[in-house]
Amino acid sequence: LLTFFSCFLQGILERLDAGEIVIGDGGFVFALEKRGYVKAGPWTPEATVEHPEAVRQLHREFLRAGSNVLQTFTFYASEDKLENRGNYVAEKITGQKVNEAACDIAKEVAKEGDALVAGGVSQTPSYLSCKDKAEVKAVFRKQLEVFMRKDVDFLIAEYFEHVEEAVWAVEVLKESGKPVAATMCIGPEGDMHGVPPGQCAVQLVKAGASIVGVNCHFDADTCLKTVKLMKEGLEAAKLKAYLMSQPLAFHTPDCGKQGFIDLPEFPFGLEPRIVTRWDVQKYARQAYDLGIRYIGGCCGFEPYHIRAIAEELAPERGFLPEASEKHGSWGNSLSMHTKPWVRARARKEYWENLKPASGRPYCPSLSKPDGWGVTKGARELMQQKEATTEQQLKELFQKQKF
Amino acid sequence: LLTFFSCFLQGILERLDAGEIVIGDGGFVFALEKRGYVKAGPWTPEATVEHPEAVRQLHREFLRAGSNVLQTFTFYASEDKLENRGNYVAEKITGQKVNEAACDIAKEVAKEGDALVAGGVSQTPSYLSCKDKAEVKAVFRKQLEVFMRKDVDFLIAEYFEHVEEAVWAVEVLKESGKPVAATMCIGPEGDMHGVPPGQCAVQLVKAGASIVGVNCHFDADTCLKTVKLMKEGLEAAKLKAYLMSQPLAFHTPDCGKQGFIDLPEFPFGLEPRIVTRWDVQKYARQAYDLGIRYIGGCCGFEPYHIRAIAEELAPERGFLPEASEKHGSWGNSLSMHTKPWVRARARKEYWENLKPASGRPYCPSLSKPDGWGVTKGARELMQQKEATTEQQLKELFQKQKF
Amino acid sequence: LLTFFSCFLQGILERLDAGEIVIGDGGFVFALEKRGYVKAGPWTPEATVEHPEAVRQLHREFLRAGSNVLQTFTFYASEDKLENRGNYVAEKITGQKVNEAACDIAKEVAKEGDALVAGGVSQTPSYLSCKDKAEVKAVFRKQLEVFMRKDVDFLIAEYFEHVEEAVWAVEVLKESGKPVAATMCIGPEGDMHGVPPGQCAVQLVKAGASIVGVNCHFDADTCLKTVKLMKEGLEAAKLKAYLMSQPLAFHTPDCGKQGFIDLPEFPFGLEPRIVTRWDVQKYARQAYDLGIRYIGGCCGFEPYHIRAIAEELAPERGFLPEASEKHGSWGNSLSMHTKPWVRARARKEYWENLKPASGRPYCPSLSKPDGWGVTKGARELMQQKEATTEQQLKELFQKQKF
Amino acid sequence: LLTFFSCFLQGILERLDAGEIVIGDGGFVFALEKRGYVKAGPWTPEATVEHPEAVRQLHREFLRAGSNVLQTFTFYASEDKLENRGNYVAEKITGQKVNEAACDIAKEVAKEGDALVAGGVSQTPSYLSCKDKAEVKAVFRKQLEVFMRKDVDFLIAEYFEHVEEAVWAVEVLKESGKPVAATMCIGPEGDMHGVPPGQCAVQLVKAGASIVGVNCHFDADTCLKTVKLMKEGLEAAKLKAYLMSQPLAFHTPDCGKQGFIDLPEFPFGLEPRIVTRWDVQKYARQAYDLGIRYIGGCCGFEPYHIRAIAEELAPERGFLPEASEKHGSWGNSLSMHTKPWVRARARKEYWENLKPASGRPYCPSLSKPDGWGVTKGARELMQQKEATTEQQLKELFQKQKF
Repeated sequence: LLTFFSCFLQGILERLDAGEIVIGDGGFVFALEKRGYVKAGPWTPEATVEHPEAVRQLHREFLRAGSNVLQTFTFYASEDKLENRGNYVAEKITGQKVNEAACDIAKEVAKEGDALVAGGVSQTPSYLSCKDKAEVKAVFRKQLEVFMRKDVDFLIAEYFEHVEEAVWAVEVLKESGKPVAATMCIGPEGDMHGVPPGQCAVQLVKAGASIVGVNCHFDADTCLKTVKLMKEGLEAAKLKAYLMSQPLAFHTPDCGKQGFIDLPEFPFGLEPRIVTRWDVQKYARQAYDLGIRYIGGCCGFEPYHIRAIAEELAPERGFLPEASEKHGSWGNSLSMHTKPWVRARARKEYWENLKPASGRPYCPSLSKPDGWGVTKGARELMQQKEATTEQQLKELFQKQKF
Repeated sequence: LLTFFSCFLQGILERLDAGEIVIGDGGFVFALEKRGYVKAGPWTPEATVEHPEAVRQLHREFLRAGSNVLQTFTFYASEDKLENRGNYVAEKITGQKVNEAACDIAKEVAKEGDALVAGGVSQTPSYLSCKDKAEVKAVFRKQLEVFMRKDVDFLIAEYFEHVEEAVWAVEVLKESGKPVAATMCIGPEGDMHGVPPGQCAVQLVKAGASIVGVNCHFDADTCLKTVKLMKEGLEAAKLKAYLMSQPLAFHTPDCGKQGFIDLPEFPFGLEPRIVTRWDVQKYARQAYDLGIRYIGGCCGFEPYHIRAIAEELAPERGFLPEASEKHGSWGNSLSMHTKPWVRARARKEYWENLKPASGRPYCPSLSKPDGWGVTKGARELMQQKEATTEQQLKELFQKQKF
Repeated sequence: LLTFFSCFLQGILERLDAGEIVIGDGGFVFALEKRGYVKAGPWTPEATVEHPEAVRQLHREFLRAGSNVLQTFTFYASEDKLENRGNYVAEKITGQKVNEAACDIAKEVAKEGDALVAGGVSQTPSYLSCKDKAEVKAVFRKQLEVFMRKDVDFLIAEYFEHVEEAVWAVEVLKESGKPVAATMCIGPEGDMHGVPPGQCAVQLVKAGASIVGVNCHFDADTCLKTVKLMKEGLEAAKLKAYLMSQPLAFHTPDCGKQGFIDLPEFPFGLEPRIVTRWDVQKYARQAYDLGIRYIGGCCGFEPYHIRAIAEELAPERGFLPEASEKHGSWGNSLSMHTKPWVRARARKEYWENLKPASGRPYCPSLSKPDGWGVTKGARELMQQKEATTEQQLKELFQKQKF
Repeated sequence: LLTFFSCFLQGILERLDAGEIVIGDGGFVFALEKRGYVKAGPWTPEATVEHPEAVRQLHREFLRAGSNVLQTFTFYASEDKLENRGNYVAEKITGQKVNEAACDIAKEVAKEGDALVAGGVSQTPSYLSCKDKAEVKAVFRKQLEVFMRKDVDFLIAEYFEHVEEAVWAVEVLKESGKPVAATMCIGPEGDMHGVPPGQCAVQLVKAGASIVGVNCHFDADTCLKTVKLMKEGLEAAKLKAYLMSQPLAFHTPDCGKQGFIDLPEFPFGLEPRIVTRWDVQKYARQAYDLGIRYIGGCCGFEPYHIRAIAEELAPERGFLPEASEKHGSWGNSLSMHTKPWVRARARKEYWENLKPASGRPYCPSLSKPDGWGVTKGARELMQQKEATTEQQLKELFQKQKF
């Protein structure tokens, strides 16, 4: 019934204008950390130079799973970030090399299928240490130069906690003339300065973004709430943009304002929170129903999670991804199992209604986010610009037990 | 302090005789299912022919993570299994080609580091459908011919529910003159005919296995209990053998006799049960303390889980694996984080004592295994040889609702 | 250090004016249901006539535990309610008799200690079936006549879901000239017509209530949030009143707008939600810190829960209740235990930090309230006046599966 | 259909011989602790003298709920225990007075219905401090003298951790000529000296007990397993006796050998473990099916739990208890509720299958019992006779952190 889709490669906006659902890719830093190529903490992407085959393979898996966009693995790849944190990386691996290699790998894999390549920038230490607008923009511009030289298809500004910096990023990226998407890592409470999602969306669109939404920091439920607020903000302002969501693949109903980083399990104990493929199918459906047309994932999203988006929306899209050759929809590959009770799991109702057990009876269901005991003063300082207050914070924290 | 290890490549028994700890690899079928190359249900390894780059990359990740043995990806690769289940695979992909490609890939990657290649066989449909000893042995012999031609370093008979079949497999593999390891997928209650673990171990060693233990079906706690019973059985029989364990990377305290397959979450809802790297470190230490010297993992074990074994036992072994360059021991890569409460997680006590939350307050902690409602008669039939009773079972089950 | 308190019996307002903390009593219908004297469903108090000794004993236990107010057991004792539901009760047990007996019992026990007697009215079927103001007021007036004849100390209008009806009740009770307290069974979202808590409080005070707050339907956390909103509403309106809270003794973080009745566990499976004495001490402290000076409990509150309020606030009040003779503060009665690890529990830090296990690994932590599947139209109808829409609802519900 | 039962009062053995199911009563010390009359820690029953009305009321509630036996409230009422722990009790309240008052109250209430009165003894400090057989027997004999003078119907030796002491108690009680029941507070692992349940039962019957079983320390599931082992022991020894069970009303699947006392929640945080009435119905049915004919409860059992036994077994017994007038079987009293989804709960399937949520997402499902870290030597010492080793234990424990 469903056949593989093949078309002349069009741009991101042409696709969205034509009513297509665009499927994003998953979480590179988390997946490659588990595969042994990225260090948790710094989370920098020097693997593009050190181990291109590993990055290439992950791109390929997302492509097979149904991704229509391959994001260059340039998260936290700004020069200032790499200098700041990357001292365990060989000196010869410059930011420029990391960004160039990321583009080369993504473009190479994109040719294997029907995918666009998006160059990505993310929040910078320069902004957090209160560098001025010109300095911060210069950092983005350096990455953009590589993206232009390598001629990526469009650009994404993602993982911004402050809309001010996100707007600066969009302004720089728009200098390219290419389409720009912008996502913030915020929840329904808004950015770290308290700007609500609706206003964030308005500012980003006014700055030039054609696609806006959220990524990272929260689970699908929370992200969809936030995108809904963005949508309402845009409608109220009579602005038009496509909506995008790339949530975590972790259940985080217990997050505070700053997301999963404050959860005690971050980043090395998140396993019990990992979403199933069925959770993702539910997310994909809800995102679609909300009007989101660029649907992907962030940290924790593995190739099979992306495939779940593609399978859920196969009726609307008219085709299945390549990797579905190795997957029976709703567990139907179990229909041949020798045990009758396993065969009985080969149906939608079973997986849709399953409440999966954790196998961990000594563990709770929810956690209290850390940082709650911190004095209000310290929190306010922190919520402004972290690096400047680091010294003050150290002093504050030395005075208290936390 | 710790430096990378390099030595003349020695055989598995020389290494164990010299007191080395041998680290196994992780779970190929589960990892490659998530990456889009293996179909759950059949679980067959035709990816060695279809997508060798994906298999190669996973081998490489385990090698970097510290594996000293690369098992050929030949699980369920006997001709009878591939014929039986693999009708969705192109006809030209014969069992011989799958086994040959698996050997080539493993040997190629093994050269990148200090690893041995082990050819592996597992339980067969022929045995379950009551074929006689000669027929079943002929199936194993066919795979062995490939392993001999490709000259693997040693052989593993793994994932056997019946010790009778495991013994036949060991007997065949011993014809090669190479060292043989044998692991069963059983728990403390013993094999499906009720042979207790101690007796299973004795029979396997008498058949020629130099290394015995368990793999798959149960979590680390349960596997270690089973290996302990095997050890006691061997001691009582005054037999000597090395011990081996390759458990699941899922918490399964609620399993019944037949392991995780009966859990309602198998195989598409196991996420909340995935073990953390800290769980694995605890397992590695307990396995070592129990005297096990071949320590690896099975389904669910990703490269970072194998790295956790290597890191836990680094003091004993004197070196860290390559992938530890991208990992701070006990979370110390967080010591530079901007948030003080995240920095506070950069210590052993924190992760060792964390009880990670599931983020799923609507889900239980434990499940009741399926198959409990089945009549005793049916269960007894099943526990004998499934394929013969399949027809009878169908009739039995059609009479009842389950 | 602390001595038992004895004073000339003063009125409720004199006590509050003097800065005293007034401790309420606990939940009669739930406690007597478990003791075998009240029927769940109707929840009517005919036990005052049928089994006065059981009612007397419960009053006495609350008195010993520290209650300063004994509420007459006249919950749902309006004539219309007793007629409506009480057909399993002997005909000769009229509403008048139930109310009279309730007063007699409470007054008799109150003399055993330092307690006031409060006559209580609660929401009526007449209101829900859209009887007019005059008819509804007539129902309250009938109960008030008994309270006046029996000369109770003050009056409470409690358990109202609609502020309109609560205001009518307060207006009737004020005709007596006695002090009136008024509590609604609402959460932070406000009453069933959507009137927010702050406005409810303002209307109640304007109608004549000297004390306002919430009771029943929600756990302590939720009730305190609601009272806080009432406090803010009163401050904004520059009105003065004392604050009161009588929450459930069940943890209900998963409640919807209509409270615990919609939880799947209501009313016969609430056990795992029962609060500990330590939970109550935390509640008492938070209530006090919020400025609440009439602190009691509702359904689920047993005598030992009330004692926990009195013990927590003993430093402020200067004395312990009589029943503390049989209780060591913070578990210190365990300091003589033969097992050292049980002795180790005789301290505040232990109980304050304990996260008690449920012993139910097959059960979830939270439930989804029922009624969610109901169509929006039906919900809106219901949220207006239940009895009138019952017919419409029946029709609606017959059309759908829920 | 079912009518209230009335018969000539017969003895316990006549009733059991006639095939009747005898329903026991519930847990006095826990119920009266919550009502404010018993102190946790000492758990002594001086309330019989201090507050007879409270004890009388609880007896009455159990009687109404269906109890056929009222046990005198003489738990831990041996002189040595009262002296040892009861120093907070007025000196004039001697053990003799406590025992006499307990008999008077029980006999008085028993006349209100169809109930027998059983005099009860329990384990003594004398035994634990290694007093010899004669001394320990003298303690029991002192209580027995009161029971004889008051002419109770039969006798119960309950809550024994050591079968040796239980046998001594039975021997003393048999001197009376009255029927004797004996229950131990042990699990399937047997008594504190390691005597297995089957052997305990044999010794008790040989000593003269006509009824044997278990009480306290474990939940119903565990108690039934233990009684099953007792039954098998008696059958193997070709001995005959009636079986009895009086388990906790707390779920304790995580208990160690010494039962719920070692759980971190004991005794002030057990609330989330309290069983529902439906759990009790399941227990009553399983006990009946196992052949137990004296079915009651221990700590945590409230009157409504006893009523649940009577309701579950009403078909076999032919009548309902008095308190069922205030209870609809399987929730049918909800069938008149105004909310359709609450009405939908008025059926057996609903409550039978409900997995009640704890409302506590920050708490685990199971706990690790305390005392596990204790050295094996210390545990062995303790498991012998606690009081003698107390001094040694203190020294041992001072040397280690636990």
